[in-house]
Amino acid sequence: MARKIIKPQPISGFPEYTPAVQRVWQAWCDHMRAVFERYGFCGIETPAVEALDVIAAKGEVDKEIYVLERLHRAEGDKDARLGLRFDQTVPLARYVAQHFNDLDFPFKRYQIGRVWRGERPQAGRFREFTQADIDVIGVDALPLSFDAELAAIMWEVLSGLLNPPQPPPSARGGNDGANLSPLEQERSEGANLPPLEQGGVRGGSALPFQIRVSNRKILIGLLKSVCIRKNEEITKILSFLDKGHEIHPGLLREFGVTESEKQKILMEFHYQFKIFQNKKGETFNYIYENMKHLIGEGLIYLDTYDESIEEGLDELKSVMADLSHLPKGAVVADLSIVRGLDYYTGTVYETFLTDAPELGSICSGGRYDDLAGAYINKKLPGVGLSIGVSRLFSHLLAAGKLPIGRVSPAEVLVALPSEDHRKAAQEAARALRQRGINTEVYHAPHKIGRQIAYAEKRGVPHVWFPDAGGHSVKTLATGQQAPADPQTWRPPA
Amino acid sequence: MARKIIKPQPISGFPEYTPAVQRVWQAWCDHMRAVFERYGFCGIETPAVEALDVIAAKGEVDKEIYVLERLHRAEGDKDARLGLRFDQTVPLARYVAQHFNDLDFPFKRYQIGRVWRGERPQAGRFREFTQADIDVIGVDALPLSFDAELAAIMWEVLSGLLNPPQPPPSARGGNDGANLSPLEQERSEGANLPPLEQGGVRGGSALPFQIRVSNRKILIGLLKSVCIRKNEEITKILSFLDKGHEIHPGLLREFGVTESEKQKILMEFHYQFKIFQNKKGETFNYIYENMKHLIGEGLIYLDTYDESIEEGLDELKSVMADLSHLPKGAVVADLSIVRGLDYYTGTVYETFLTDAPELGSICSGGRYDDLAGAYINKKLPGVGLSIGVSRLFSHLLAAGKLPIGRVSPAEVLVALPSEDHRKAAQEAARALRQRGINTEVYHAPHKIGRQIAYAEKRGVPHVWFPDAGGHSVKTLATGQQAPADPQTWRPPA
Repeated sequence: MARKIIKPQPISGFPEYTPAVQRVWQAWCDHMRAVFERYGFCGIETPAVEALDVIAAKGEVDKEIYVLERLHRAEGDKDARLGLRFDQTVPLARYVAQHFNDLDFPFKRYQIGRVWRGERPQAGRFREFTQADIDVIGVDALPLSFDAELAAIMWEVLSGLLNPPQPPPSARGGNDGANLSPLEQERSEGANLPPLEQGGVRGGSALPFQIRVSNRKILIGLLKSVCIRKNEEITKILSFLDKGHEIHPGLLREFGVTESEKQKILMEFHYQFKIFQNKKGETFNYIYENMKHLIGEGLIYLDTYDESIEEGLDELKSVMADLSHLPKGAVVADLSIVRGLDYYTGTVYETFLTDAPELGSICSGGRYDDLAGAYINKKLPGVGLSIGVSRLFSHLLAAGKLPIGRVSPAEVLVALPSEDHRKAAQEAARALRQRGINTEVYHAPHKIGRQIAYAEKRGVPHVWFPDAGGHSVKTLATGQQAPADPQTWRPPA
Repeated sequence: MARKIIKPQPISGFPEYTPAVQRVWQAWCDHMRAVFERYGFCGIETPAVEALDVIAAKGEVDKEIYVLERLHRAEGDKDARLGLRFDQTVPLARYVAQHFNDLDFPFKRYQIGRVWRGERPQAGRFREFTQADIDVIGVDALPLSFDAELAAIMWEVLSGLLNPPQPPPSARGGNDGANLSPLEQERSEGANLPPLEQGGVRGGSALPFQIRVSNRKILIGLLKSVCIRKNEEITKILSFLDKGHEIHPGLLREFGVTESEKQKILMEFHYQFKIFQNKKGETFNYIYENMKHLIGEGLIYLDTYDESIEEGLDELKSVMADLSHLPKGAVVADLSIVRGLDYYTGTVYETFLTDAPELGSICSGGRYDDLAGAYINKKLPGVGLSIGVSRLFSHLLAAGKLPIGRVSPAEVLVALPSEDHRKAAQEAARALRQRGINTEVYHAPHKIGRQIAYAEKRGVPHVWFPDAGGHSVKTLATGQQAPADPQTWRPPA
């Protein structure tokens, strides 16, 4: 033991959890997967790495990529250089291109996985984090109905994670609920997941989060109508708006819009957009009708008329109509949502926590025309949404809003009153486990009080006392102890 | 589309699966987790990376480590250098040391995760693969009963993965089976997971795999008894035996055993070990009694007597006795199992497929005295076992022995006879999903034959025909179609 001890330090940006927190994390992952599968989405996993030339296929290499080096790479090694994936969209595009002939389209897939970004360590920035992505990919075309379906799925997922009030389940038969996630089961069975404390959420009309939807065709059409036709310019302006900036005359000059008439037009659009931004709570129909009216009456003056404006408005209307079954305010149209990434071409989404909008969007995405053009000579349009799981989880953890409970997954601790009881203890445990009841056997014939304290500390609700002559079980919450048969006993509901 | 297309190639050593195979992989992971939790083990996850000084704390840096570099690392960056984890034992040791005060001991944890080894690409070698580890860590001491419990857990896990014949479950009540894994549920419900085709396994007495156990104290004691006292020498000999080599006089000289008398002694031990190796199928009692007899009668001549020989024999006997409830041949004592790694100090395990022993051990591990001495000034003995999941899965996949079935997780496809039916289709789907039934809605009003073909191709067993006037459902396997109510219909068991 004279050896030097290397005291391990947490690595900034690489979160890890103690077992009780990990149980909640696992319940989150199970819930997300259960909802995705309830809509028939297939799960896939891809390697942690991609070849650097695949990552760089679109011409730019993000500098946040971690590149792998073998510690003792030999001279002359000719391996492809590998980088850790920095999102799950590049891997999806590569996967679809590579396995094209083995997939059914529309290809509906979910992927819950870690991604890595080699940023400089700083507080609150993750360098390893989990994203939960769903995408639907078509060949040549993809029905607009998926744009609504994806939002509905994410609404259901996030509702489960953020634990809003739920109606009691209708009468459940034997097989019902087979695919309910543990979070849902525990909730529907009234079990002991403590409710989230969300100020003002429970019972009131406010929802804990809101999905905001727009369609980039509207803004792109408007910008094209004033002759900003270069995609790069439009992307620059979109990125700029995306960061919350306002358009001011200086900016327009910067983007090459110098004629004063066009400046005025853009200012007018901007003014209209500000109106929409201030009306986030309004029904979409109001915005839609108002916009149509402004255009129709010539109140918005267009230099030329790009019909994608109307296309975008109609698509957005259709998506909103398909989501009308959701609670009021769950999904709203919000023309200020633009997303900076240049590959979105239609519907775009962002999602905000009601009581923490400053966290930024917790679930974002959109529709794109061409997923995998860099890897395959096919047109593969798609639509996708992604939850930043680590960021959302970490926010709720820090805010004390996660239902952190038991450490142990066991429902029963079989006590070991003496070494002579070991055989009976193990047989009882086997009988319980055979019927799917998670069961620990205490490891040594310590005093019973110590064994019960162990169960309490780990949150195991029942302690079993084995005896060849007759078993009994004690429920710690009530203190009641009663005879029980390991072949038939079940934990009370 | 004039852009150059980068055609993606599979990266050697980084497996990925199509959705139907991924479903089986996911069922494997669920099953492993369900069994681990049934014994009260907590799941943990650790980052993909560890600091290089943590990896190198024991003084040697394995050259198979992948080191991370930021693609555009700035001059003067002072970040800790990071390497991808190459196993889950170093992360466990670091985790236990770092979170020591937040953990309960004995700490029972499982971890199913990916590890990376930067080997040169070659056929059949994984550079990214999944391991499923269970370990129990004590402080200062850890009862021997865990050495048996871990083998019993892995027996249950592997039995599920390799799908041997199972007794029908006893009468199951409402809540029973809540924690059965999907693999177990499907089997216990007689569902459509095809049985594994394992030559000679089914119905016969041969099991599809066998866990072999020894105790290193026996061999170490024997070697110490002939005055090979240096641990490095013992480790060298163990590694040598581990690779299947025999001890010959030249080897003994190489290891510094030059006196002819001692050579003779070692040869005698070796002879005895060969006897044990040839008796793998015998009951442990036979080996135990024989060994005791040889020592007691002086038939094995010991230069000095190291009592760890007997300690090892007694421990091995106790472990075998605790496993006597398992089928005959499931776990056998086999003194030829030594494991090359120098940290094992007692029980050691290896596991072989009956019909593919050449695959090597699929589940290995052992007991160690001191898990985390490099990171914390505490004595933390433990025992652990690890399944090489990727290697086993890949072997069965290549051999055509995996129950690959449906692509879609959905049980129902709601057809879309016309665009006018969309509302009824979506309402039916919502009602089914609300009761936990995985349901897809077909995406476009194609001809019904095409919609049914889609369901068949994806393995969705039921097609739902929505109609506000009255719904019906068709079961593809039987061709039967009957009226159904989305509020009450359940898939037939």
